[in-house]
Amino acid sequence: MTQRTEISTLGEFGLIRHLTDKIVLKNESSLKGVGDDAAVLDYADKQILVTTDLLLEGIHFDLTYTPLKHIGYKAAVVNFSDIYAMNGIPRQLTVSIGISKRFCIEDIDEIYNGLGIACDNYGVDIIGGDTSASLTGLTLSITCIGEVEKDKITYRNGARATDLICVSGDLGAAYMGLQLLEREKTVFAGKKDFSPDFGGREYLLERQLRPEARRDIVDMLAGAGILPTSMIDISDGLSSELLHICRESQVGCRIYEDRIPIDYQTASMAEQFNMNLVTAALNGGEDYELLFTVPLSAHEKVATLEGIHLIGHITSDSQGCYLIGRDGGEVQLIAQGWQQ
Amino acid sequence: MTQRTEISTLGEFGLIRHLTDKIVLKNESSLKGVGDDAAVLDYADKQILVTTDLLLEGIHFDLTYTPLKHIGYKAAVVNFSDIYAMNGIPRQLTVSIGISKRFCIEDIDEIYNGLGIACDNYGVDIIGGDTSASLTGLTLSITCIGEVEKDKITYRNGARATDLICVSGDLGAAYMGLQLLEREKTVFAGKKDFSPDFGGREYLLERQLRPEARRDIVDMLAGAGILPTSMIDISDGLSSELLHICRESQVGCRIYEDRIPIDYQTASMAEQFNMNLVTAALNGGEDYELLFTVPLSAHEKVATLEGIHLIGHITSDSQGCYLIGRDGGEVQLIAQGWQQ
Repeated sequence: MTQRTEISTLGEFGLIRHLTDKIVLKNESSLKGVGDDAAVLDYADKQILVTTDLLLEGIHFDLTYTPLKHIGYKAAVVNFSDIYAMNGIPRQLTVSIGISKRFCIEDIDEIYNGLGIACDNYGVDIIGGDTSASLTGLTLSITCIGEVEKDKITYRNGARATDLICVSGDLGAAYMGLQLLEREKTVFAGKKDFSPDFGGREYLLERQLRPEARRDIVDMLAGAGILPTSMIDISDGLSSELLHICRESQVGCRIYEDRIPIDYQTASMAEQFNMNLVTAALNGGEDYELLFTVPLSAHEKVATLEGIHLIGHITSDSQGCYLIGRDGGEVQLIAQGWQQ
Repeated sequence: MTQRTEISTLGEFGLIRHLTDKIVLKNESSLKGVGDDAAVLDYADKQILVTTDLLLEGIHFDLTYTPLKHIGYKAAVVNFSDIYAMNGIPRQLTVSIGISKRFCIEDIDEIYNGLGIACDNYGVDIIGGDTSASLTGLTLSITCIGEVEKDKITYRNGARATDLICVSGDLGAAYMGLQLLEREKTVFAGKKDFSPDFGGREYLLERQLRPEARRDIVDMLAGAGILPTSMIDISDGLSSELLHICRESQVGCRIYEDRIPIDYQTASMAEQFNMNLVTAALNGGEDYELLFTVPLSAHEKVATLEGIHLIGHITSDSQGCYLIGRDGGEVQLIAQGWQQ
């Protein structure tokens, strides 16, 4: 960063103007964005989806190794991911930001740049927000609003016995990327320039620092005429998300270890770290892939779609939720969340 | 607080269930609340209003003298106020909360109780949110969604020369309440029990700690058949909000010092603190009263409405924005925001 302009040179209203001046609304449903007490939207006969995420410094991101632009990008994308997981299209976003004194205008610009690029890539309008001084760390709160046709919503509670369980992309890479960054941070602790060599691990870092939301999967399913019976995005890990679907749908499940899609960089990193690869894929989190179920009758259609993997099937509730290992052994799935 | 249950006894998902189990949706437009990737709303032919606020410990509230229940109540109400300022009705709310280790489940329950009471009082549904551990202070981020008929929206940019400037309630009391609390905090610094005697100052404290949004004013105007030409809620002070209206509407204004409504407790406190009363009323903030303009032709109607005060009129842009003092002198209005 070559320049450092203190936020005090602009003041609150000046900062807001500086951050929002260049915003141009793209969506028909965005009638009025930033600049009044509330934004105004018109969704006509579409239904409205609302999701929100709070991102706190030291919990959701570590400024030692995360560029501010990436924080902005990721903050937006993880919210889009929630809208896609309802089979919807994200349209608007509000962003609230708490800024402590060590940040300058150029820093905030970086965060907004990341948010802006994500919004451009996914066709979303920034319609409002709040900026505030913060006595503590950097705080980002994003709310995303999207649209969906009434008969196309995919909830978590629609899975039925015999449905196939599908997942997009591959799992565990974002988690291994985090492990890699944390290790390098420890190695470089106290040294001035944090610039380790990540050669050959770029995919893991990208998955952790700059994830994408799977709009392409939602489009692909629509194109193939497949309406999932249930869908969720994988933010807390496959195991936890699958248990959400099973609990909400009152069903059980069987997934197969050898079907879980894992990239070779993830596998190689897990080996190097002497970590259990399946645990990373099941509980790692932050993959932002889509986990969904389709009726057994859609088997042929879904099997041909690139980037979608059949990993198991739904059972009756009484059969419980299990992972079938490569050796045929069954392991009960358990959920993990944050613990204080 | 008699009981203290650590959040770790529930974990993330347990805490979310604990906080959201009892939520019952009240509004027709709330199709699906907490429990999926996104909430689902249906606004039919109504337009949608969205507003958001970020509340940070040490900036927006001080836990020394603010009960957690009041923090929850106020956090919700200030967002409702933004929706009313668009002439709308708040319908849904999302709440994201960052919790540091020193808080227990009973603390979070208190915040949620306050939010819940506010939502019940104003007919709003809690439809989603995010809970997270926090390494720093308590963080609250609220997004409120409301409805408004297309032809009833009151923006900031509709004021025209000769329009009358109106304000509801009285001004400066919340600010004086804050001064009072801050003074007592200093007096009691380091002492264990913070329980000063606020006898005779209850109104000031209530305005600061438990403000209300002026739904009654919006209803009253609708009942009288008055559609304001512009409207804003007073969160940053009369001066700053009036300048927003003038800038957005490209007009000027004259307001009269002797017309600014001030409660006697506010005046008496200002005298005791040796503070300028008009400054408190103009720049104090957090009043959450409504500031609006009506056509001159509505003068007779609006003059009869209880709790609404005519404080001046809109002029052409070139005439600037001024307060006319009791002595007839003119003082230019200036805006204030937070400064780092």
